[in-house]
Amino acid sequence: MYLNELFQKQEELLEKEVTVHGWIRNHRPQKEFGFIDFSDGTCMKHLQIVYTKELKDFAFFTSLKNGSSIEVTGILKKSEGKGQEIELQAKTIVLIGDCPLDYPLQPKRHSLEFLRSIGYLRPRANLFQAVFRIRSLAALAIHEYFGQNGYVYFHAPLITASDCEGAGEMFQVTTLPLDELKGKPDYKKDFFGKKANLTVSGQLQAETFATAFSKVYTFGPTFRAENSNTKTHASEFWMIEPEIAFCDLNQDMDIMESMLKYVVSYVLEHGEEEMKFLDQYQQPGLINKLQNLVQSNFTRITHEQVITILKEADVKWEFEPKYGEDIQKEHEKYITEYFHGPVFITNWPKDIKAFYMKQNEDGQTVAAVDLEVPGAGELMGGSQREENYEKLVQRMNELQMDTAEMEWYLNLRKYGSVPHSGFGMGFERLLIYLTGVENIRDVIPYPRTPGSCDF
Amino acid sequence: MYLNELFQKQEELLEKEVTVHGWIRNHRPQKEFGFIDFSDGTCMKHLQIVYTKELKDFAFFTSLKNGSSIEVTGILKKSEGKGQEIELQAKTIVLIGDCPLDYPLQPKRHSLEFLRSIGYLRPRANLFQAVFRIRSLAALAIHEYFGQNGYVYFHAPLITASDCEGAGEMFQVTTLPLDELKGKPDYKKDFFGKKANLTVSGQLQAETFATAFSKVYTFGPTFRAENSNTKTHASEFWMIEPEIAFCDLNQDMDIMESMLKYVVSYVLEHGEEEMKFLDQYQQPGLINKLQNLVQSNFTRITHEQVITILKEADVKWEFEPKYGEDIQKEHEKYITEYFHGPVFITNWPKDIKAFYMKQNEDGQTVAAVDLEVPGAGELMGGSQREENYEKLVQRMNELQMDTAEMEWYLNLRKYGSVPHSGFGMGFERLLIYLTGVENIRDVIPYPRTPGSCDF
Repeated sequence: MYLNELFQKQEELLEKEVTVHGWIRNHRPQKEFGFIDFSDGTCMKHLQIVYTKELKDFAFFTSLKNGSSIEVTGILKKSEGKGQEIELQAKTIVLIGDCPLDYPLQPKRHSLEFLRSIGYLRPRANLFQAVFRIRSLAALAIHEYFGQNGYVYFHAPLITASDCEGAGEMFQVTTLPLDELKGKPDYKKDFFGKKANLTVSGQLQAETFATAFSKVYTFGPTFRAENSNTKTHASEFWMIEPEIAFCDLNQDMDIMESMLKYVVSYVLEHGEEEMKFLDQYQQPGLINKLQNLVQSNFTRITHEQVITILKEADVKWEFEPKYGEDIQKEHEKYITEYFHGPVFITNWPKDIKAFYMKQNEDGQTVAAVDLEVPGAGELMGGSQREENYEKLVQRMNELQMDTAEMEWYLNLRKYGSVPHSGFGMGFERLLIYLTGVENIRDVIPYPRTPGSCDF
Repeated sequence: MYLNELFQKQEELLEKEVTVHGWIRNHRPQKEFGFIDFSDGTCMKHLQIVYTKELKDFAFFTSLKNGSSIEVTGILKKSEGKGQEIELQAKTIVLIGDCPLDYPLQPKRHSLEFLRSIGYLRPRANLFQAVFRIRSLAALAIHEYFGQNGYVYFHAPLITASDCEGAGEMFQVTTLPLDELKGKPDYKKDFFGKKANLTVSGQLQAETFATAFSKVYTFGPTFRAENSNTKTHASEFWMIEPEIAFCDLNQDMDIMESMLKYVVSYVLEHGEEEMKFLDQYQQPGLINKLQNLVQSNFTRITHEQVITILKEADVKWEFEPKYGEDIQKEHEKYITEYFHGPVFITNWPKDIKAFYMKQNEDGQTVAAVDLEVPGAGELMGGSQREENYEKLVQRMNELQMDTAEMEWYLNLRKYGSVPHSGFGMGFERLLIYLTGVENIRDVIPYPRTPGSCDF
């Protein structure tokens, strides 16, 4: 029986015989009896196993080592010890897989850096048991939210011949024999007959699906070949990108807010044990922070108003806030504190935003929005998309983009164009917020970062 | 209001005023009135819109073109026409986005080849409305099945420095400037400081998570740089790879069977309209085929027994069945017909299977399983994994594999090794089976195949 099932049915199983399989997390043998801190990883809770001298193989049991896998049959009892309600009074313990004494994951405090170096073992540590179970729950919550609201889940292509954002930092995908190349490669001979890259966003393709199904979302990996060694950058990460037809910027914000609240509520409800653990050992106040988010009203304010507030603030800024320019981390922080909660900042200067965003009538700004969340910074970004063919072409020309290559995208504005909006949320950024973990390397099972591609 | 909502509430909305947004799929203007076949893509059902000469802008309405997007306000009525229960009696129609007469997706029969060439528009066609909504439903069903059964959803890395299957056909991922390469590249200068590829399977990493959480699954993209231009090969596809600790081959088959039946039932229940459409226009008998699967008992039989049955069959084979060798499509077909349903074939000759599969005591076979399904061929493959360190190392040495590079994987057998099993299911192969569509290019939003990487 798996432990999650055992704990769910613990009342009816009391005084009954059960058999469990799992690993010894910590073993404390004593003269007359022994305690085994036991887990199979199906829930945060561990089971205490007690064995006594009366058992035939007592001596053998006392020799069992941390990390070993065992099968235990015994009677489930109310526990008199502290820290657990029940315990298993062992009748037999069978060693399934031994574990040597040099097992790296001994029950003591390890640094996160060390745990990264044993990435294939760290999911067995309590912190990562919590983090990766929350990761799984949050992913399910996202699918549930969109599923219940009539969205079509859409798999955007990962290998692409186009460069959506106009940014250059993409990984190239090739089957050309690099050892034999001389001079400019002949991409006609490459696998796809042209140069191919890993996608940085599924948005443009999601727009094509939104004009077919009205409400769609992607949830898949994206890639950035950015040489940034920071706590918040990874080269491979997962993104959620909803795209909605007949939806303006205000409705877009409604969806962003309701999705985020749904996911946070879901995780608080279904990951209670994990959140308690993270609140206690990782980020005191975590649960309170998340509960506040669910109950808060999200402020909506323009970029221009933000700059005015920042300018009027009695603060010595490192970076002076300026109309028409981007805002910095210190500004984001101030604004969420000023409004005591999450803030949607809208109508950004067009020159610091992407080409596909809807141009406002002022000629200066676009219908873009960033969501700033206390303790998380920018958690999502979205926009209404430019649905006017001429305006979009003009903007692409201003930015010297190749309109021929993007003909299919432009044609969405020719063939029954509709107002539509969408947003993107980096899944790992959400997880950093949900778990209180600080480094993106610790919320990804096997992180890929510059110079690092292990396991 | 979106159409899925409107149809759900159609009884209470009768004789009430509603406003809808969507696209003209087909317009039949007549002298005294006009009919618009209207859809917003939120469900298979279209809404018939009727407008009459009494309306002020009647002449303008008659000029509306196929593919245009419109907003319609009117009264919902019971329809007296054939083919629909309700219709919308228009009061006003607003043109949102016009559509030229050369719109490629006119309401007539198009070839699948042509529709692939307009991949950004084809999701608007009825067939792809059905296919991609089934794709979305099947994905949700998979997450729901594993979520409800206590599995942790695990994102395997896509960029990897190792080659799991020992096969060579991988895409290389690089940021090296290919134009400037001369001779053997210095991979220390590449993004990750070593040669990197796109993964062909997340299984090995999933095993590390299974020894931490007991029950895990991946659902993500995988890649093959195989130069196969067939109906069933794509270079980028999605895989589901569950991995379960304390699970032998028989329990593995239990899970394969229960998951498949769950997903098929879910799609039949939640995709009723889509399945009706596909049954009618794509594969007559489709629903019946799927219902049969849900009700059938899956046979379990060894590879050796299969060969015996094939040899005894009164059939002239193109390929003679042989003990110790792989079986062919014609054999797969015969076996499922022989047993009138799905067949698990177990205990395969070790030399035609992967290194990580558990060696049976006969020294000749491994605890592997393929699931053969009538009308689908091999739908899933799985195995119990070799959990014995020495046996695994020996097998890798026989196959001249690099054990040093795989130390982390081998160590799972050192540190509390447990019996564990898993399987893989190609998502697109499932979709071909679920939809009756024949070509993998038509169940992937933007397929990537040799020589083809469009949109």
